[in-house]
Amino acid sequence: MRTLIGELEGKTGEEVTIKGWVSVRRDQGKMVFFDFRDRSGTVQGVVLPSSAAIETAKETRNEYVVEVQGKVNARPEKNVNAKVMNGTIELEVTGLTILAKAEPLPFDMSADGYNLDLTTELDHRALTLRHPRLQAIFKVQAVIIDSFREYMKSQDFFEFQAPAITPATAEGGAEVFEVNYFDKKAYLTQSPQLYKQIVMTAFERVFSVNKVFRAEPSATTRHITEFVSLDAEMGFIDSWRDVRDMSEETVRFILNVLSQKCAKEIELLGATLPVMLEKTPTFSLTEVQEKIQAKTGRKVVGEKDLSSQDEMDICAIVKEETGSDFVYVYGYPTKQKPFYVYPNPETPEFNEGMDLLCRGREWLSGGRRISDYAQLMDHVEKWGMEPKKIEMFLEAFRYGAPPEGGFAFGVERMTMQILELKNIREATLFPRDMNRIDMPLSDSEPKE
Amino acid sequence: MRTLIGELEGKTGEEVTIKGWVSVRRDQGKMVFFDFRDRSGTVQGVVLPSSAAIETAKETRNEYVVEVQGKVNARPEKNVNAKVMNGTIELEVTGLTILAKAEPLPFDMSADGYNLDLTTELDHRALTLRHPRLQAIFKVQAVIIDSFREYMKSQDFFEFQAPAITPATAEGGAEVFEVNYFDKKAYLTQSPQLYKQIVMTAFERVFSVNKVFRAEPSATTRHITEFVSLDAEMGFIDSWRDVRDMSEETVRFILNVLSQKCAKEIELLGATLPVMLEKTPTFSLTEVQEKIQAKTGRKVVGEKDLSSQDEMDICAIVKEETGSDFVYVYGYPTKQKPFYVYPNPETPEFNEGMDLLCRGREWLSGGRRISDYAQLMDHVEKWGMEPKKIEMFLEAFRYGAPPEGGFAFGVERMTMQILELKNIREATLFPRDMNRIDMPLSDSEPKE
Repeated sequence: MRTLIGELEGKTGEEVTIKGWVSVRRDQGKMVFFDFRDRSGTVQGVVLPSSAAIETAKETRNEYVVEVQGKVNARPEKNVNAKVMNGTIELEVTGLTILAKAEPLPFDMSADGYNLDLTTELDHRALTLRHPRLQAIFKVQAVIIDSFREYMKSQDFFEFQAPAITPATAEGGAEVFEVNYFDKKAYLTQSPQLYKQIVMTAFERVFSVNKVFRAEPSATTRHITEFVSLDAEMGFIDSWRDVRDMSEETVRFILNVLSQKCAKEIELLGATLPVMLEKTPTFSLTEVQEKIQAKTGRKVVGEKDLSSQDEMDICAIVKEETGSDFVYVYGYPTKQKPFYVYPNPETPEFNEGMDLLCRGREWLSGGRRISDYAQLMDHVEKWGMEPKKIEMFLEAFRYGAPPEGGFAFGVERMTMQILELKNIREATLFPRDMNRIDMPLSDSEPKE
Repeated sequence: MRTLIGELEGKTGEEVTIKGWVSVRRDQGKMVFFDFRDRSGTVQGVVLPSSAAIETAKETRNEYVVEVQGKVNARPEKNVNAKVMNGTIELEVTGLTILAKAEPLPFDMSADGYNLDLTTELDHRALTLRHPRLQAIFKVQAVIIDSFREYMKSQDFFEFQAPAITPATAEGGAEVFEVNYFDKKAYLTQSPQLYKQIVMTAFERVFSVNKVFRAEPSATTRHITEFVSLDAEMGFIDSWRDVRDMSEETVRFILNVLSQKCAKEIELLGATLPVMLEKTPTFSLTEVQEKIQAKTGRKVVGEKDLSSQDEMDICAIVKEETGSDFVYVYGYPTKQKPFYVYPNPETPEFNEGMDLLCRGREWLSGGRRISDYAQLMDHVEKWGMEPKKIEMFLEAFRYGAPPEGGFAFGVERMTMQILELKNIREATLFPRDMNRIDMPLSDSEPKE
């Protein structure tokens, strides 16, 4: 009967069988010390010279998969490390069976010795994923996704599956991947935007966790071609502020769950969760530009959007003024944004779109959408859309749609920002970019 | 303050405001009757001749979006219908505001009158999705996905995001979509198989909910090109039977949750949940063939796989013999299956792959995989794989992997089978096939 390593504490004096990997092996001549690892954690093992396992222990190497019989002993007082899992016990190994061998590792994978450049880390993702640092990143990411779903369900949102293959590009642009679809052309979705609006007209409150694709021909620290988008859309809003509030409470819920479930992982990664006030400071684009101009002297009032520098400046200003790491910005020039964004009825040159910024970057986007069919058709014409290409979307609004809005954010980007990682690839399990799909693309092409 | 329609029962005598759609409007001259609908359900409304809302009520049409003030009244005894939501009450409408109009509907959308052919239903998915029958299907589907995740998490499985874009086809074949990836070729994944095995070597127990793609050039009732695959993979198994058991308990859990959360939807659709015994009957392929041959006289012993007729026959035989709607079949000819499937050590010409059949069809596939690196490389060579194309996968096993296995099933297919639907497109929110992406493909091509 297998005992998980995470269940060993409290079993002092008992005989147990564990199964897992050898993280570290230290051969000290007569004795051999191990760190064993399974999905639940790690434990130190010692093989005494008199143990029946001593010969096998000498053969065993890092990353071997083993089955271990042993006795759970309290550690001598001087060796106790209360800070780590199983820091008060060690396993006296009485039996050791090698379930699978490993070839000698191409680099140091021990928790302390691991210090790889990102390229090497990605070239060997199958191996580096075993490292505690990487495991911590993807545990945090799984919790972000799961707590998003949990909050959405608690607010009566219905989960739907948005398609990946699309007939036409909703938002146009060159940054779309083309698929050879039998004898026709199709495209990979850039966003479930129009589909979530369609499904909203049937289920009222909807969310989805879906892959989206961007053919970004740039290899920066923030661009990948395939990522996970968390999307929400809700009907019967009174104004864009209902969407703002829902998105704020969603992010707050995620941060709370992270602080409860991932404290160890966040500490291991040297990160701190951002501060969210009871009510996040919220300003129009114009107000933000005025604040930046007043503070820095940079002439930005009247610009059509926030630059990267603007985003950093407003976050710093708001942090200093209020202590909030977050700030909402709303009211962008209507013409700069997609056709479906709702213009402010009083100042129609500005829309009711919004962004949530944190630590100098955009984390989340959303806003109110146009739900009136006549107004929508007017925008379709003014934006030069082809109605035929979005017929299914238009039908949803032709037959009665409530005032509505929604928001979206990218999982990898949020993981990166929360954990203060330097490159989005660190927060992506199998990152794809213009130069890499698993392995570097030049290498992966078959040699003719 | 909005009250949800699902909260009205128990509010008899109170004044409320509801918001929603008009499902049905019956103008009886002096009075107007309505069925109002929101995300929580439906309620009957009546507008009396003396109501301030009577003029607006006369203008209102089906699928208009409305805000309604009214008083919750008990229905007269003779009109009580205890079987439906709000069957004991009606809303006496005192105020009615039209939030959005709808154009006249292209067909009857009322619960009783709806009787569309599938092509019309799909051509108007944005509208037909409002029908109770379609809403029931996709609620069931959402619960299947969510209860899969719930069970996996309860069993300590880690959720990961598998990629959609792949560099090479793991299982080869023509049925793969090609993506124009910058100046190179890439492909849409047919299965997260190799990725889940990689991630298993780091997290031990893993699951994923992911889109997969098959370029099936056939337009049958069971083929779509994009669907949702539920995948699980687990390390440290003793035999393929551990995988069998985990998959059985997963399906059992899903069925139990469905019986609790979706009883009304399943009844509405006229379906019944299949019967799963405490231990599902389990036979080798050879045993199954012998049973079929004994029962039907068809000479099938020695065939390399089960035909559709075989699947129907064995399900009928097992149902008759045991009462079980489910049957596991294991032990397929090793050479017929992918390179990673584990051959039975005692009879290596048969493998430890398995299928779960129900109601004459395969519902789920899985089995034990090869985890020993030397054996894996041997199969790679014998199956004619290019090691370079699966280097990341091979690395995972080069550095120590435990005995392992896993299983997978398609959400749309399971939804179809559970609900006894005739066509998988009925169980797909936005079905894609060789002739359709949202709208029929011939129509969606721009006219040049």
